[in-house]
Order: sequence, then structure tokens, then C-alpha cells
Amino acid sequence: MLDGPLQSLINGQQADQISIRDRGFQYGDGCFETVRILSNEPILWPAHLRRLKHACKVLRLSVDFDLLMNEISQLLQSNNNADVILKITITRGEGGRGYAPAKHADCSRVLQLIEYIVPDTAKGARVILCDHRLSSNSHLGGIKHLNRLDQVLASAQIPANFDEGLCMDEDGYVIEGCRSNLLLAVDNELLTSDLSRSGVEGVMLNHLIEEFGKQATAVIRKPLSLAQLQEADEILLCNSVFGVWPVLEIQNVDWQAAPDQTKYAIAAQEIQYTLFQNSAL
Amino acid sequence: MLDGPLQSLINGQQADQISIRDRGFQYGDGCFETVRILSNEPILWPAHLRRLKHACKVLRLSVDFDLLMNEISQLLQSNNNADVILKITITRGEGGRGYAPAKHADCSRVLQLIEYIVPDTAKGARVILCDHRLSSNSHLGGIKHLNRLDQVLASAQIPANFDEGLCMDEDGYVIEGCRSNLLLAVDNELLTSDLSRSGVEGVMLNHLIEEFGKQATAVIRKPLSLAQLQEADEILLCNSVFGVWPVLEIQNVDWQAAPDQTKYAIAAQEIQYTLFQNSAL
Repeated sequence: MLDGPLQSLINGQQADQISIRDRGFQYGDGCFETVRILSNEPILWPAHLRRLKHACKVLRLSVDFDLLMNEISQLLQSNNNADVILKITITRGEGGRGYAPAKHADCSRVLQLIEYIVPDTAKGARVILCDHRLSSNSHLGGIKHLNRLDQVLASAQIPANFDEGLCMDEDGYVIEGCRSNLLLAVDNELLTSDLSRSGVEGVMLNHLIEEFGKQATAVIRKPLSLAQLQEADEILLCNSVFGVWPVLEIQNVDWQAAPDQTKYAIAAQEIQYTLFQNSAL
Repeated sequence: MLDGPLQSLINGQQADQISIRDRGFQYGDGCFETVRILSNEPILWPAHLRRLKHACKVLRLSVDFDLLMNEISQLLQSNNNADVILKITITRGEGGRGYAPAKHADCSRVLQLIEYIVPDTAKGARVILCDHRLSSNSHLGGIKHLNRLDQVLASAQIPANFDEGLCMDEDGYVIEGCRSNLLLAVDNELLTSDLSRSGVEGVMLNHLIEEFGKQATAVIRKPLSLAQLQEADEILLCNSVFGVWPVLEIQNVDWQAAPDQTKYAIAAQEIQYTLFQNSAL
């Protein structure tokens, strides 16, 4: 969904080139956020900021968040109320000896506004199960870091007429979509994957979990097998950019949505509509 | 061991900045080689080129290798016989939609000459076992790709007075050093790690395996436990930049080299000396 950028700032300066010595380029040594901007307001901003701060803490990236916030405001002021994506990339900057980071690294703050082509999520998503398996690491699980070869290689396996690819880890557990998280409705329970070793802890996923919780529907996190996927009454994709996208079919898994099963899709889409209308910085 | 670059070429042009839209920066979508240059000749070049081509095949990066070879020659001609490192980085370039790569991507070819400060490998290496565990993925195991957060986070755990950190995977198998492979001498056998799910298939490691083979010493690849590490009579680190580095001690594992056990260290160092003196393009 991301296309050519409208504008970008690197460490507060208008620029779109970075040194090949930047550790983001050399090692994927950093993390990022992609934030939907509606009416010039970043959707789910407090949750994005919380996740970014957590990623920086896990990766030990020392960022001046006041400066970052000023730069984000500066960039958004230049945006003419367009429906765009704000991509925030934080890297460890230059320096260090080979892999070993410098003791006090000057992090790079890279901000981009990227055009957003809104997908038609009203029609259900056509999904394929990808062959490529996600890497596992209990220290990096859930973190939106810059080591995204898994998502690239899995995405390359999605045919042109499909909307998303599902990924398993090497143990065969279903983790997430290439760019979205997963909710399964099974026997009137909502399930989502264990993201402690693979995948990204989604901002929209956590908003749905919180809002469903308020409606007395607990979302249960557990390792999800292919069999559980196949037994699901409803399957929903979600991310903070497109919101909620009910799944129509999953190729390679032989799963199809039953037209009469829409209870959780409707509830999740209502949560999304409320959010997208009421968002505030 | 890598410091500020002397010179660099991006797609044949003298430059040291790359677009923030380059997929190397965005996702670590690429691979690299670091090649020791001695008397203006790249050491173990055929093996480096073979590994690079294999990585490009696995990642489906379509590179013009004739062009790359010309650019490498151009860069090396500018080098005044200095002892340097040639770093070759190949990324998928720009384009695609989010993670999904473009069908026909124009890869970026980034070449850097980097000063090399030769370490004193004559004294044994002081090594520490790192807490950080390496990610596992059977599709990416052995490949020198750009997703190197594991090596960064592990390297950050090496104290200043240590030379290298050892890394295990999440199952507790000993995989490699942060920037080197491992050879263990146990009961007159040489062992090295299984690199099919984690770690980098080292060019120097494979040269040693080949040369030891000619001397009727087979190097056995198998999953290595901490117990096997502790039982080793000799432990050697190797990479294509520093060559062979016998280990003096491993902190957190309680292993120390016995002064009378030097059989394989001497044999490996002789292989290295021959290589570094006789290398040819």
C-alpha cells in the first residue's frame, strides 16, 4: 500500500538520502512505525509512540523524543490534509566497529510522508498461505525492527490478485499476515497468535483487544495451529493503516468465509469506524 | 575491525549516500560480502563470489555480475596497495509496494573500501559467551544477508577487553562468533557448527575444511552443545578478514586453552599463511 513519498525529513532536515555508513542500511539496525494520517491527525498515536519507545528500549536506541515530536509536527504541517502514511524510522546512525555499536550512538530520525491508496476492505480479503516461514527469536518477537527479509520473501509469494499472505513460523504455528495481524473467531471465542517469538505486536490488534474487552469479549492469545485456522468461523486481518479486513478465503488452507458468519467482523469494523472518526493527537 | 571508508561506489558512481527508499535501508533487503584486500588482490575471491551469487539466488536478487566485476576492478585500481576491506552490498534497490518487491527490481550495487586495523591474532582471543541468542530460519541459515540485528545486539555484549563474542541459538546450540566461525578440536576430531538454520557459511571456514580435507582431517559439521565446547582441546575462530585466531579463554563457559594443545591451531595458521601469501584474483 506504500508508494512514492511526498516529503521526508532526516534529522530535521529535508532530505531523502542517507549515508551508506548508517547502520540502518548496513545491518537493519533500527526500528520503524507506519502511522495512518487522517485529517492531519495520526491514528492511534499514543499506541504507536508507546511501541516505538519500547522497540528503542529493547534495541537500546537512545532517541530524543521531544525533537522527534517537533519534527513530526513540522512534517505534518506541510501535509495538505491528504490521507497519507507517516513512516518513522529510527536507526543507530553511524559509528561503532563492525557489528559492535558505539557506546553513545547518534540515532538517525527518518520521517517520510507516503501516499496511501485505500484498499477496498468492504469486499473480503483474498489471502494465501505463504511457504516462507518467519524467523524466531524471543528477544525480538513482537518488535517492529528493520530486519524484514522474512516479510519481503513471504510477500513475494502473494500472487497479484491476492490481498495478503499468511505466515507460519518454522514450528508450523500461524503467526500473522505479511503486513497485518490475525483474529480468529472459534466457537464464540476470539483468538490471536502468540507473538512472543515471531511477528509484530500490532497497534490496531491491541486496540481491538482493548475495545473487545470493554464489550466483555476477551481475546485469547495462544499458539495457533493450521487446524485452528481451518476451524475458524470468521477470520479478520487488522493493521493500523487499513484497519479491519475480514477474510474471504485462504488459498492453500482450504478455508472460505461462511456468508452468515459476520458477528465479529461487524463488531471489529464498528470499532474501526469509531476510531477513524474520533482520532486525536 | 571496520572503520571509516576510504572510497565508495554506488552503481558505478562515486557516492556515499543512498535513497531512504532503498530496500536495503527500509528492510535489510539484500546481502553483503567483506573481502580482505592484500597487495590489491581480494583474498579467497572465487569463494566470496560464489557465496554472493548463492545469496542473491536465495533472495532472488537479479544482479549484473559483469558490471559488478568492472566496478570492483575500478575501485581496486584506486587503492594504493593498502591493506583494506572491500565491502560489497547488494540490495533490491527501490520499488515494490511495501514489503512486496517489484517483479523486476533494479538492484543497488554498493562498494566500499574500508581501512583495516589488523588485530594481534598471535596472542589468543579472549572470548565471551553472549546472552543474546541468534534467530533461526532454515531458508536464511548460512546466508550473509543484511538482517544483522542479532550480531549487533550480541556484539554490544562484548566488553572492551574481549576480542569476540560467541552466540548460541534459542535451543542452546553454539553457532558461531559474532563475526567469525568456530572450529573445535575434540578427541583428535575437528568439529564445526550446523549452520543450516542460523549463522553465516564462512568463506574462511570452508577454505579450512577443504585444506584440512587434503591433509586427511575431515571437519565434522554437527549441532554443537555447550558441553562439547567445554570439552574441546582447542578452539579456533576464523573469518576471511583476520584469518585464524586461536581462542585463549571463554568467559561464562569456564574454558581455557591448554598451552600444550596447539596442533590444530598451528595447522590452521599454516593454511592461512599459505593463503594470504599466494592469493590471486
